[in-house]
Amino acid sequence: MVHDTSKTSNKMWGGRFAAGPDAIMEAINASISFDKRMAAQDIAGSRAHAAMLGAQGIIEPNDAEAIREGLLTVLSEIEAGTFQYSTALEDIHMNVEARLKEVIGEPAGRLHTGRSRNDQVATDFKLWVRDQFDAAEGALLALIRALLVQAEEGADWVMPGFTHLQPAQPVTWGHHMMAYVEMFGRDLSRMRDARTRMNESPLGAAALAGTSFPVDREMTAHALGFDRPSANSLDAVSDRDFALEYLGAASICAMHLSRFAEELVIWSSAQFRFVTLSDRFSTGSSIMPQKKNPDAAELIRAKIGRIFGANVALMMVMKGLPLAYSKDMQEDKEQVFDAADNLMLALAAMEGMVRDMSANRPQLAAAAGSGFSTATDLADWLVRVLGLPFRDAHHITGTLVGIAEKQGCDLPDLTLVQMQTVHDGITQDVFSVLGVENSVNSRTSYGGTAPAQVRAQVARWKGILA
Amino acid sequence: MVHDTSKTSNKMWGGRFAAGPDAIMEAINASISFDKRMAAQDIAGSRAHAAMLGAQGIIEPNDAEAIREGLLTVLSEIEAGTFQYSTALEDIHMNVEARLKEVIGEPAGRLHTGRSRNDQVATDFKLWVRDQFDAAEGALLALIRALLVQAEEGADWVMPGFTHLQPAQPVTWGHHMMAYVEMFGRDLSRMRDARTRMNESPLGAAALAGTSFPVDREMTAHALGFDRPSANSLDAVSDRDFALEYLGAASICAMHLSRFAEELVIWSSAQFRFVTLSDRFSTGSSIMPQKKNPDAAELIRAKIGRIFGANVALMMVMKGLPLAYSKDMQEDKEQVFDAADNLMLALAAMEGMVRDMSANRPQLAAAAGSGFSTATDLADWLVRVLGLPFRDAHHITGTLVGIAEKQGCDLPDLTLVQMQTVHDGITQDVFSVLGVENSVNSRTSYGGTAPAQVRAQVARWKGILA
Amino acid sequence: MVHDTSKTSNKMWGGRFAAGPDAIMEAINASISFDKRMAAQDIAGSRAHAAMLGAQGIIEPNDAEAIREGLLTVLSEIEAGTFQYSTALEDIHMNVEARLKEVIGEPAGRLHTGRSRNDQVATDFKLWVRDQFDAAEGALLALIRALLVQAEEGADWVMPGFTHLQPAQPVTWGHHMMAYVEMFGRDLSRMRDARTRMNESPLGAAALAGTSFPVDREMTAHALGFDRPSANSLDAVSDRDFALEYLGAASICAMHLSRFAEELVIWSSAQFRFVTLSDRFSTGSSIMPQKKNPDAAELIRAKIGRIFGANVALMMVMKGLPLAYSKDMQEDKEQVFDAADNLMLALAAMEGMVRDMSANRPQLAAAAGSGFSTATDLADWLVRVLGLPFRDAHHITGTLVGIAEKQGCDLPDLTLVQMQTVHDGITQDVFSVLGVENSVNSRTSYGGTAPAQVRAQVARWKGILA
Amino acid sequence: MVHDTSKTSNKMWGGRFAAGPDAIMEAINASISFDKRMAAQDIAGSRAHAAMLGAQGIIEPNDAEAIREGLLTVLSEIEAGTFQYSTALEDIHMNVEARLKEVIGEPAGRLHTGRSRNDQVATDFKLWVRDQFDAAEGALLALIRALLVQAEEGADWVMPGFTHLQPAQPVTWGHHMMAYVEMFGRDLSRMRDARTRMNESPLGAAALAGTSFPVDREMTAHALGFDRPSANSLDAVSDRDFALEYLGAASICAMHLSRFAEELVIWSSAQFRFVTLSDRFSTGSSIMPQKKNPDAAELIRAKIGRIFGANVALMMVMKGLPLAYSKDMQEDKEQVFDAADNLMLALAAMEGMVRDMSANRPQLAAAAGSGFSTATDLADWLVRVLGLPFRDAHHITGTLVGIAEKQGCDLPDLTLVQMQTVHDGITQDVFSVLGVENSVNSRTSYGGTAPAQVRAQVARWKGILA
Repeated sequence: MVHDTSKTSNKMWGGRFAAGPDAIMEAINASISFDKRMAAQDIAGSRAHAAMLGAQGIIEPNDAEAIREGLLTVLSEIEAGTFQYSTALEDIHMNVEARLKEVIGEPAGRLHTGRSRNDQVATDFKLWVRDQFDAAEGALLALIRALLVQAEEGADWVMPGFTHLQPAQPVTWGHHMMAYVEMFGRDLSRMRDARTRMNESPLGAAALAGTSFPVDREMTAHALGFDRPSANSLDAVSDRDFALEYLGAASICAMHLSRFAEELVIWSSAQFRFVTLSDRFSTGSSIMPQKKNPDAAELIRAKIGRIFGANVALMMVMKGLPLAYSKDMQEDKEQVFDAADNLMLALAAMEGMVRDMSANRPQLAAAAGSGFSTATDLADWLVRVLGLPFRDAHHITGTLVGIAEKQGCDLPDLTLVQMQTVHDGITQDVFSVLGVENSVNSRTSYGGTAPAQVRAQVARWKGILA
Repeated sequence: MVHDTSKTSNKMWGGRFAAGPDAIMEAINASISFDKRMAAQDIAGSRAHAAMLGAQGIIEPNDAEAIREGLLTVLSEIEAGTFQYSTALEDIHMNVEARLKEVIGEPAGRLHTGRSRNDQVATDFKLWVRDQFDAAEGALLALIRALLVQAEEGADWVMPGFTHLQPAQPVTWGHHMMAYVEMFGRDLSRMRDARTRMNESPLGAAALAGTSFPVDREMTAHALGFDRPSANSLDAVSDRDFALEYLGAASICAMHLSRFAEELVIWSSAQFRFVTLSDRFSTGSSIMPQKKNPDAAELIRAKIGRIFGANVALMMVMKGLPLAYSKDMQEDKEQVFDAADNLMLALAAMEGMVRDMSANRPQLAAAAGSGFSTATDLADWLVRVLGLPFRDAHHITGTLVGIAEKQGCDLPDLTLVQMQTVHDGITQDVFSVLGVENSVNSRTSYGGTAPAQVRAQVARWKGILA
Repeated sequence: MVHDTSKTSNKMWGGRFAAGPDAIMEAINASISFDKRMAAQDIAGSRAHAAMLGAQGIIEPNDAEAIREGLLTVLSEIEAGTFQYSTALEDIHMNVEARLKEVIGEPAGRLHTGRSRNDQVATDFKLWVRDQFDAAEGALLALIRALLVQAEEGADWVMPGFTHLQPAQPVTWGHHMMAYVEMFGRDLSRMRDARTRMNESPLGAAALAGTSFPVDREMTAHALGFDRPSANSLDAVSDRDFALEYLGAASICAMHLSRFAEELVIWSSAQFRFVTLSDRFSTGSSIMPQKKNPDAAELIRAKIGRIFGANVALMMVMKGLPLAYSKDMQEDKEQVFDAADNLMLALAAMEGMVRDMSANRPQLAAAAGSGFSTATDLADWLVRVLGLPFRDAHHITGTLVGIAEKQGCDLPDLTLVQMQTVHDGITQDVFSVLGVENSVNSRTSYGGTAPAQVRAQVARWKGILA
Repeated sequence: MVHDTSKTSNKMWGGRFAAGPDAIMEAINASISFDKRMAAQDIAGSRAHAAMLGAQGIIEPNDAEAIREGLLTVLSEIEAGTFQYSTALEDIHMNVEARLKEVIGEPAGRLHTGRSRNDQVATDFKLWVRDQFDAAEGALLALIRALLVQAEEGADWVMPGFTHLQPAQPVTWGHHMMAYVEMFGRDLSRMRDARTRMNESPLGAAALAGTSFPVDREMTAHALGFDRPSANSLDAVSDRDFALEYLGAASICAMHLSRFAEELVIWSSAQFRFVTLSDRFSTGSSIMPQKKNPDAAELIRAKIGRIFGANVALMMVMKGLPLAYSKDMQEDKEQVFDAADNLMLALAAMEGMVRDMSANRPQLAAAAGSGFSTATDLADWLVRVLGLPFRDAHHITGTLVGIAEKQGCDLPDLTLVQMQTVHDGITQDVFSVLGVENSVNSRTSYGGTAPAQVRAQVARWKGILA
């Protein structure tokens, strides 16, 4: 069943070289240790290519069929874990083809007609990356759904809205959750745009110049789910934009995750206690028995490092490379594999945390009511009711905050008389806007924090996802 | 005419603080030195806001009109270069508003009703970045047009196609130019997608929670050319995705430019002499009188550094920032300004170089014909005519290359007898595929290097751009 | 007094080119807009070079003297702000030399003997960067001194020590400050090592090959404060390691600053209130009158973005550049200038904040005593007194924490009986280790948080800085 | 022999949590898949710690001895490949300790006295990174030695010296090789400085506050080869400067490698043919039988991407982390492991290539003599012999180059009469400086390209390495 090609060393270009590559060269050159992750894509691409070669009469139809069947056999061995990879065969393409030859014999040698490793690897990698766009889409949708559940439940739970990590104005839990829905919604949109842009088939570009065989690139493109064949063969084999664009979109998504994770870490501190994370996504300490640490949130926060690090790495690799294919480009895959694995993991962990976490409503409400959080409402009242210019209202409010601060109380605790010493037009009516609930309910501008607005946005998103 | 506010130090929040900010704080905190580039955007945003406040009855219509007119006066001062910026007023928003107050008096204080600096700066910056998407689109189109001219003229000029900077197969000059058309075409598509995604108005999000004033966010969005208001006020003031996405798209574009620039540097070397750059885009040496250096190409090659460096910078700034606005985000603008300036410069310089450069046809043709560049054609002939599996054909060709190399000649210089010693099925017909012109003409697969294919792609692009 | 060279366009290599550079080329090529910051270094280098040319008899001694005097005149014009820079003269070197010619006439043309712009710019830039190492050293020392003041005063103020932003064990304010002293101490060491490594003079390397004039490179090196001339002329003109190493050291320093700044932001939140920042380094809000925002801390936190972004930019520029000088390297200076300006600003702002800030001792003490922060002390007592293996002690302590948590109290609030139900060997003595003060005082291991240890480390650092 | 702990799930802090971690949490949280590379370091650290605990009487001497012996058994299992790692035990520390308990029973539980995972992991990782500094030093020395062999052999082989990839002045092969010796020499110095700075022991810092057990941190530091214990326990567990500094030094080294690799790729092109790389470090093409590609050089060129990408990743992770340990920091190891593996591979491959490569002397000499490469020598002659100011000499030479260019010849091919039409002072003597050999021999300034200078530098380096 298993084959051993590593000893025979039948490198395809062996005739060209006197000396064999030594261990260093094998270590730096061979890609099989990582590109075997593209086995399914490689076989799908080869099967499409073989079918086309047969249909076009470039090879015999029964050879084409033998190749296609043989490739299924190889795939089943890979899926069963019985396939034996050989480093001497360097990459997944040669490993698969060598095994195909063992399985079906001579016709295997006809598969590589009218293509090259350059378009083959570009095709495999594009298929792999395309799958990641789809996977990210699925994970983002799941995360958005989890956020909508939190948002709907807490559409009217008041909490402090922060700027500069200082309480600014009261908002609602639902409103805060919906902010992340917007962010992950943009990530979704970005992934979809990139997927559409990259969905052109390199297959048939051959080494770099196209081929003189009468290949049908439309046919293979269609068979592999591409929208069309790529329009320039030099570009087709030297393009890695799709990988960079995936990494770019993944990095922005990871940035959003890092912000949310930071908030969860802060919110679950002993000083904030805004949220309780589930035990599933927390761990303890080997030395401090009382600790419950938000490990998952911290790890999610860190993932931007390796994902954007991968973006930097590949951008740096591509910088200044002349056309067409250069071996430097072999450094593309590990970066994308690692970034994709970690993005998926981070999205799944965040979704799990969001599903499990519970907001500490009393603590949120208490925090929302402190820190002069309705000072803006006071200033707005001065504008709206007394007709003051906003800048003057802002100054008066600042003076009142100073008085309250000196007294160690909050704005609603000031007396009307105290207020009137600062501006004598102030009336009892002002107290109607100083409550946290009133403040939140009043912010009904589109996209504002009023519960009705939050519920409207939840409904809009449900419609989008329906 | 000019005003001097720096001495009165009427900071809007001055009442709150006992101590005045010292020089360090002013240096680190003030943004006027760079955000004055957004003056036109700031005034456009304020004019739209004032019109809406008036239309909604939030301020008096004549106040609204006075504000709108006064802002035009301020704008004209800025455009005339007579406006005097004050660092003590910190940013463009306060500079404009303070001057507005000088111009129109008390109504100026009513402008800041129902908005905050947070949504104001987000609006200004989005408008600025949106302009850059448009500017990049224009520059990309101009560059593509310049490339199409080169491609059409040289659709059938043969040159070596390289992989690993080794001659691989002959291609045409036009085909090579069209590879860059595809790349810059993707950049165009990327810029357009990003522009569409970001075109939502933050105005009216206020500090972070929305506002209780009956603002009409649709109206201001429409007036400013946005497709709609953003749907979450917390997100609206803390989102910088649009800047990151601009930087990401600009970085990939700069990467394409770096590859082309690298080729131009190599091609204009004394050893290659594939291309002659115009004197306009070259310089000499202060010590070596004979030098003609491809400085513009080198500088373009380098631009990816600062553009992608800006991307790294802003991604790093945004990492782990809790919602909503944090002052860290003030570091966004200089990065984008510098990246945009340099992208535009690099695109313009590249367009100029492409327009001016002339291919050295004889040198290209000679290089295309050396280095066994039609070995693949020989292998393909063995497959097509003799029905050999490609892998066997590849091996035979390798042996023939070895013989030719030992003799110091190229493949077409071998005799039929020599060829037949390696495989006796080879006939005289094989020589028909060994010429460079034949090789190029045979590669008629879609997107291949055959002149007819190249011309078809030029025509397709002309249709797109028409 | 002022000169105008921009119209005469006497480019030194003008004879070589037919066409004049147009606006794009000038914009991308000219460096005078930024490299004028190296004017003092350029003149110092030229004066040393002229003295050497005279001493070696390469030019006439009186010409050398005229050059040296004339350069002082030019320098005084630059310092007085009366020097008129010309973009047509491209860079600081040509601007200075052109003005020198106006001032002293023909001998000015003899200055550029035995050198090139390549070694000239490398020398200027090295001198500039060397000054930055010195400036950073000064700023780091000042910051360390400010931290030592805080550490000494608060050597025994208890506060929670955090891991995962969860209270872990009590520590002291002084101990926490001293952690940053260690970090900034390493930055100091890193800056000094890098300065030593880079202190070799490129002057005399000429364009790339050295020179046939009998220059004395030791003499110019010595005059400019370099330890020795660089040992390879190709390397001397193509090396930018010193700039990269500065950026690397600055980036790590900025990372330390970002961590401290993050803590200050969190500590000054309404929920923590561990520290009060001075008004000097805080600002208010344009819409929320009650806000006091830690703007300086946020801006310091963000500086790592642009500083490390500069590191990325220059690393990317240098990637794959063939020897010796390439024009790409002109992109080095703006990155280093910007990073250095911002590092100095961030260090100064942090020093100011540290000097001004006041710890909120009662709040720190209260926080230190909550959250089961002495659970480890309990576990250690079980090991030390009862001889349990640590892992068992850890488990018992975890159970006790669970009981206390359920009761809503802390560990010292449990009764002895309750404790004995979990392990019957526990005695009254256990309560002696559960107090926060006891906990802190007990950690006397070298570098531990015990006040005596903190004071010892303060003393050690004072000795180092004395 | 093997153990299976994954089913019993005896997580050390299991009592604290009701719910068990699910698959996602395990996937994101467990580090055993990569931190097992630190097994030897972990065991060395634990053995030193156990010896100290025994010596200080903190645990029984025979327990200490049992632990030390048991750890050797565990180590031998790991080295033999029979150790069975458990993901449920999360990391290498718990895996080793759990196995130790199986081997020696109850005393295993006493090992973790007076330390925490925080100082344990910091110690392990520092030991690992320290080994990498040593490994890099060895590899750099080997590479420098290989370069010295090339330099000595080719001390007087002329070749073109390039700036802007244009021939500038003749240099020698040896001189060019020595430029890289200087670069890798700085890398060596950088690695050594960083190793010295980082060589402080975190062990005994415990979780973050130090410990109340009477540990002897000097003893464990000494046993593990550290120069001293670190001076602040908070810093000790939250410091990753050593990893960042390794990555920084590795990145600059990789940048040097990328430049050399770029040159090798260009030099081995069909147009340059300056150098022949050995077959060992080249590969062929699957479709183009004639190709011999410089794959190793291309892969080396690309390594800067992943190495500097790792630097970015870890810098980003560390940005803004509050003290002391945060779980984010678990992302440190994979980045450093990958960077270190790839740096070592790239250095080894480069050393191999340098040892194997052969310069194409005739081609180098021919190229050195073309392109007006001795124009500077002509200008210098005009200064030296005719006493012209350099700027005038430069202008005259430029005119002569123009004449030669128009005639299609080089400078030595002009007649004396032709020269005198440009400047009538020129004599026959000028031709003595126009030869390439003369040019090279004349550049005797320190560090210049004259063969005698090159040999002096080779001798200096041999002395350093002796």
